[in-house]
Order: sequence, then C-alpha cells, then structure tokens
Amino acid sequence: MKSFPSQRDLPKGFSFSARASGLKKSGLDLALIASDSLAATAAVFTQNLVQAAPVTLSRANIRRSRGRMRALVVNSGNANCATGDAGMAASRATAEAAARALSCLPEEIVVCSTGVIGAPLRVDKIVRAMPALASARTREADSFESFTRAILTTDTRPKWAAERIRIRGKEVRLLGCAKGSGMIQPNMATMLAFIVTDAAIDPALLTHALRRVVARTFNTITVDGDTSTNDTLAVLANGASGTPKLRRDGADFRRFSAALETICAKLALAIVADGEGAKRVIEIEVRGASSESAAETIARTIANSPLVKTALAGGDPNWGRILAAAGRAGMRFDPAQAEIHIAGITVCRHGIEVPFNERQAHRRMLAKFVPIRVDLRGGHGAARIWTCDFTGEYVRINASYRT
Amino acid sequence: MKSFPSQRDLPKGFSFSARASGLKKSGLDLALIASDSLAATAAVFTQNLVQAAPVTLSRANIRRSRGRMRALVVNSGNANCATGDAGMAASRATAEAAARALSCLPEEIVVCSTGVIGAPLRVDKIVRAMPALASARTREADSFESFTRAILTTDTRPKWAAERIRIRGKEVRLLGCAKGSGMIQPNMATMLAFIVTDAAIDPALLTHALRRVVARTFNTITVDGDTSTNDTLAVLANGASGTPKLRRDGADFRRFSAALETICAKLALAIVADGEGAKRVIEIEVRGASSESAAETIARTIANSPLVKTALAGGDPNWGRILAAAGRAGMRFDPAQAEIHIAGITVCRHGIEVPFNERQAHRRMLAKFVPIRVDLRGGHGAARIWTCDFTGEYVRINASYRT
Repeated sequence: MKSFPSQRDLPKGFSFSARASGLKKSGLDLALIASDSLAATAAVFTQNLVQAAPVTLSRANIRRSRGRMRALVVNSGNANCATGDAGMAASRATAEAAARALSCLPEEIVVCSTGVIGAPLRVDKIVRAMPALASARTREADSFESFTRAILTTDTRPKWAAERIRIRGKEVRLLGCAKGSGMIQPNMATMLAFIVTDAAIDPALLTHALRRVVARTFNTITVDGDTSTNDTLAVLANGASGTPKLRRDGADFRRFSAALETICAKLALAIVADGEGAKRVIEIEVRGASSESAAETIARTIANSPLVKTALAGGDPNWGRILAAAGRAGMRFDPAQAEIHIAGITVCRHGIEVPFNERQAHRRMLAKFVPIRVDLRGGHGAARIWTCDFTGEYVRINASYRT
Repeated sequence: MKSFPSQRDLPKGFSFSARASGLKKSGLDLALIASDSLAATAAVFTQNLVQAAPVTLSRANIRRSRGRMRALVVNSGNANCATGDAGMAASRATAEAAARALSCLPEEIVVCSTGVIGAPLRVDKIVRAMPALASARTREADSFESFTRAILTTDTRPKWAAERIRIRGKEVRLLGCAKGSGMIQPNMATMLAFIVTDAAIDPALLTHALRRVVARTFNTITVDGDTSTNDTLAVLANGASGTPKLRRDGADFRRFSAALETICAKLALAIVADGEGAKRVIEIEVRGASSESAAETIARTIANSPLVKTALAGGDPNWGRILAAAGRAGMRFDPAQAEIHIAGITVCRHGIEVPFNERQAHRRMLAKFVPIRVDLRGGHGAARIWTCDFTGEYVRINASYRT
C-alpha cells in the first residue's frame, strides 16, 4: 500500500476535513466527507442486537432520503452506544449541526461513532467544532489523509485503498478508508469503512453490489470473534465523473463491482493485518466440507480458536489444535480423511501426522501472511476466512483500554 | 482446599501409583488407580468429533464390561490423538499391559491420555514401566497425591476434592482429582477427572447420577472455548464400604448424588482457577432471558469473549463489552431493559450506565472471585457459567507449547 493517496486518486466532487474537538484527550477525533451534490448511498450495519444510536439514526436517515445523502460525519473516542435517549438526541444533534453547516437536510447526513461503549457522548464538543470542520474542507489528498487518521481508535495506522476504472471512455475513481482492529468478527465488526466514488449509479443497484461484495470481503475476516455495536460501511456515489448512470447489470456495472470488491478486499485485509497486537495475517481455507455453510462454520471456529491463534503467534505448526478446533465446530466430517497444509507444507494426511521439517515450518510461519488449508475430503463445501495471530500485545491493549 | 488428602479421605479397596516412564522430559507421567474388586463405573467423554484413541477404547471397554472395571491408567505428555491405527494399537497395548500386571481382562481397564495432539505415542515406554507401576501401588494418601501430579500438563497445581457421607450408619468416602487448564470449554474439556468411592451402586444408577451432576458442574465452566479431544470423567464405585447397594432413587441415593456434585463442583472450580495464566475466577450469571438455553448461550458468549476476559484481567469495569457480547449471542432481548452488576456494583440499568465509583469497582475486580450478573428482564431463563480472566500469560504458555 502506498503511504498516501495521490491527488489523482480522489473522486471528483468530494471534500474532506478533520478536527480535534476534544472527545479524545488529544489528536483528531471528528471528521467529515461531503459531496457537492446528493450522492447515491448504500450502507450495511452491524448485526449485533445492541446497536449504537448513530447506527439507528443513519439507517433511518438513508431510508428517509431514499438513499441520497450529502455527507457523513464520524467521531472517534466515544461509540455513543448504550447511551439511551440522550445518545439518540446526541446523534440527531450531530446530524443537525452538519446539515446547518452544509445547508442541507439533517436526514441527508450519515452519522458514525467509534470508541468506548456506555459513556455519555459530549455532543456539545461536536456541535461547537462543526462550523470550523465544515469550512476547513478541501479537495486535497492531505485532507483525505487527515480524515483517515481522525477515525482511528486502537488502530496503529490509517487504512485506505483506491481504484480507477474507465466507463464509456471516462475515468471513474473509487477511494475508500477504514478503521478497526479489535472487536472484529464478520457480519461486520468494530469497523467503520467509507467509500466515495464519482461513478453515477442507481442507489438500489449500488446496494445490490455492496451486499454481494461485503459477503466476499468484510464478512470473511475475524480478529477476536467479537462483533461491535457500531459497524458501518457506507458507499457514496455522486456521479461527478459525468459517466452515464449505471442502472442495470452489464459490462460497465461488472467493472464497477470488481473495483468495489478490490477496494473492500484491500481494506478488509488491512484491518486484519492491523488486528490488535497482530504480527501476521492467517488465511484459513476449508475445502471438502459437506456444504459451504459447514465449511464456513469450521473455518470460523479454527480462525477464532485462542489455542490456534496463540500457536500462530509463536510460529508453532501445532496442527493438532487446528484439527481439534475443526472437530468442535459442530459439523460432521470424517477426521480420518482430513488433510492439513500449513504455509504450503503438508503436516497431516488421513488424519495423522505426515513427517515434516519442523524448523522449516516454523520459519515459514514467521512470514507476514500464512496460508492454512484444511481439506476434509468429504464434499464440495469450501470457505475462506482471514484472521490474525493472537499475541500478548492483544491482551495488553485490551486489559486497560479505558484506564 | 487442604494441600494434601489425609488417610481418612481414601475410600476403601483402592490403590494408587505413579511413575516417570520417559514420555515427559522429566517427572511423573504415568499413573494408575486399581480397585481390589470390579467397580461399577460410569464415564462421560468429549463431545469433540475428533476423539483420541484412548477415548474410543475406553468407551468400548466400559460397554463390553457392562460398566464393571478394575483400573484406570493415565499417561501425560502425549494425547495419543490423530495418531491413526498406530494410536489405537498403542491404547490397546496399554490396556493389555495393565491387565497382565493386575491379572484382569484388558476390557476392564479405562485408558486416558493427555498432552500434545498428533505426535506418535511411545507406548513401548508405557509397557516397559507397567510392571513396576502396578507393583508400586499402595493405599496411602501419598500415592494418591503422586497420582494427582502425574496426570498434569500445563496445570500449575494438583486439584483434588474429598467427601465423606454416612449411609445406613456406615461411612462412605468419595475422592476425586482432575487435570486441565487450557482447551477448557463445557461439554467437557482437556480435562481428565477421576472419582473413586467405596459406595455400592448399580452402574446404570451411577451413570444417571453422573450425567445430571456433570451438566451442573463441569459443563458450566470455560477457559477458552476450546474443547479437547481427550476429555474423560470416570467414576469407579467398588462397594468396599459394605453398605447396601444403591439401586434406585431415594434418600441414600440423593445423599450420594449430593456428595458427588460437591466433588465435581470443587474440581470444576479448581480447573477454572488454574486456567492457563488466570488471575481470577469469574462467575457469569444471566437472568431474565427468554429461556434457559438462551440464558446459557448468552452467558457462554460473554464468558468466552476475549474483549470481556482481557478487561477482567485488567480489573476494568468495562460493562459495554459485556452488553456487546450479549448482543452478538444471537438471542433476542431488549437491550434497553438490561441490567449489569459487577462484583455487587450496579453499573448499568435500562441499558445505560448507572454512575458508579470506578475506583471501588476496579478494587473489587482484583479479587480472586468476581461475580457478574446480567439481568435482561425479559423472561425466566437463567444460567451460570464459571470462567477465568485472559492474561498475557495465557498467550505466553500457548504460543510455544510444543517448542
């Protein structure tokens, strides 16, 4: 990943800014993306039964505006979750302040929050910072870069991705960024991701594309099995590229969907690579299961097993723990048929150990990316999950998050 | 817990011994309990689809002998799991060696193994050590104490419990011990537990009692959500107390069951307290759920959440993570009704924070036992799970288990 987006990566008709409003003890904690015109907007939200106020409000706003939004406002440092009526009022006040500053309707604003759960949100700080936040917007790559930093919590680095495609001879740009490194489990995660594009597309078609892409990218990652209350992924498409509006499936739409998938896959992998305390990305691929959903359940059980993940932290080719995790996933298979390959080395065949060079396996497992393949040889179900290793650093980060 | 059982804790008619056979680099790794006569035996085994050879053999042996067994042999240092046909042959050879030494049938032997998965078991070492193991048996408390140490792996201390009851004026003794500290999740765990008693009881009635007791004790604990391949809990009742045989429900049977439950509860709590790297035991109690099974699912999701467990390691009253974990358990409830109490302090009511003294909560959370109560106020379902906190030490232990 390049360390900065360049000016050529920025879609037309969007402006960005970020401020330090005082929600965090120091640093940027409030950020804005605005579109010059109403942008077709698709979004997916957390599946957690406990949902933060901004999730409830944004979902309602997108419905009320029929998927045509002007801007999104994000604060870090406080999740505004489990905050009751006062929390809903705070999210509404955020949208109203942004609408005043941008001269649009409050229901044309997407609101997102991330940070500690259960503490009251000091929305007065957001409202006070809003006029300066809005007037500081620019179309410069630097402003986008500030936005990517303002939305972070325990992340160690900003995560972004850009794609350029051609539709009917004109360039269309897609630019995305994300935050999230703990409480990450598919069906979204404490994960915020935003993608802006100057493509012209019907909101319903954009929603269709996004759901398909999310199932293949963000919903195949896990850091710790914990699903957050605030997950939001929003895509804003303002049509400023001047290309004809995409209204149905076809070659142009497929080119756009492919670019959207590339961006989502890059952001999802970047989140896993920046998993709290993570040293490496692990790809768990399960084949030969009785069904696709059985394969996914088994892959996810392996990916979330603390014993597997700590072995991976130590570069220990402890394939017995992988097999044991598969065995407790609740899906039928014949252990005596199982094959396991770690970093390209076959370590288990017919359910028993294949002699292998432990030192070589250990060395390969110290790489930044370690693929693990489990073949159950019992059907055609297959699934792939990305996760990270589980280190002492994860514990250190999470044992004292609030203090 | 007393540091040693006394001679008066030992049921009549049992002898114990332990040896260093060389399976571990050093220390005791092979252990034996023998009954003078055939003992009514009940056992429960792992629910993991991947089952170790000794589990398969012991299950078959108990069936073949109609629940009347003479002895149990345990090795530590190697789980003899995922070892294929050679593994089954090794477990059979272990039973045969023990039967020769004790002059009984091989199918009257319970065989258990614990340790690393997937490595071939050097059964020649077990067979060679067996005659000396059998002849070294004594009825002394010291020998039982050696047995409790020989079965350990990453445990930091032996775990045992004893009860004495009176049936028809005669004393009946129950004595149990257990090992296990990682890969611990209900539906049994890498957990071995053995209980011997001189009660006289029908094997079918003993099995009935054991299943009921296990559901309320061992199956309500979790360390890391990982279920082992080798879990075994066996109870041997040899009748040497001379009391009339328990054949049906009644006051005597209930007294026996209560003592069995006390022993199982003590051993289960001892396992959690000795959870890998654990500093404290956490009791998660969920009330007011829509059903008992919903309450259990929610309690278990909270108990296995890495974010909750790391917060507990730091003594951080981060109730938002508890509510978020409940919310992702897949059970319906109204978050706006939820109440959370940590170590006796109400921290959340109606789904939002109740002002509380953070410093006092932090201090109370540093205790050895921390009760957490979640009341969803939506029904009569209740459940209780015991777990432990999740420390950097857990990661350290598991990142390099094999190396």
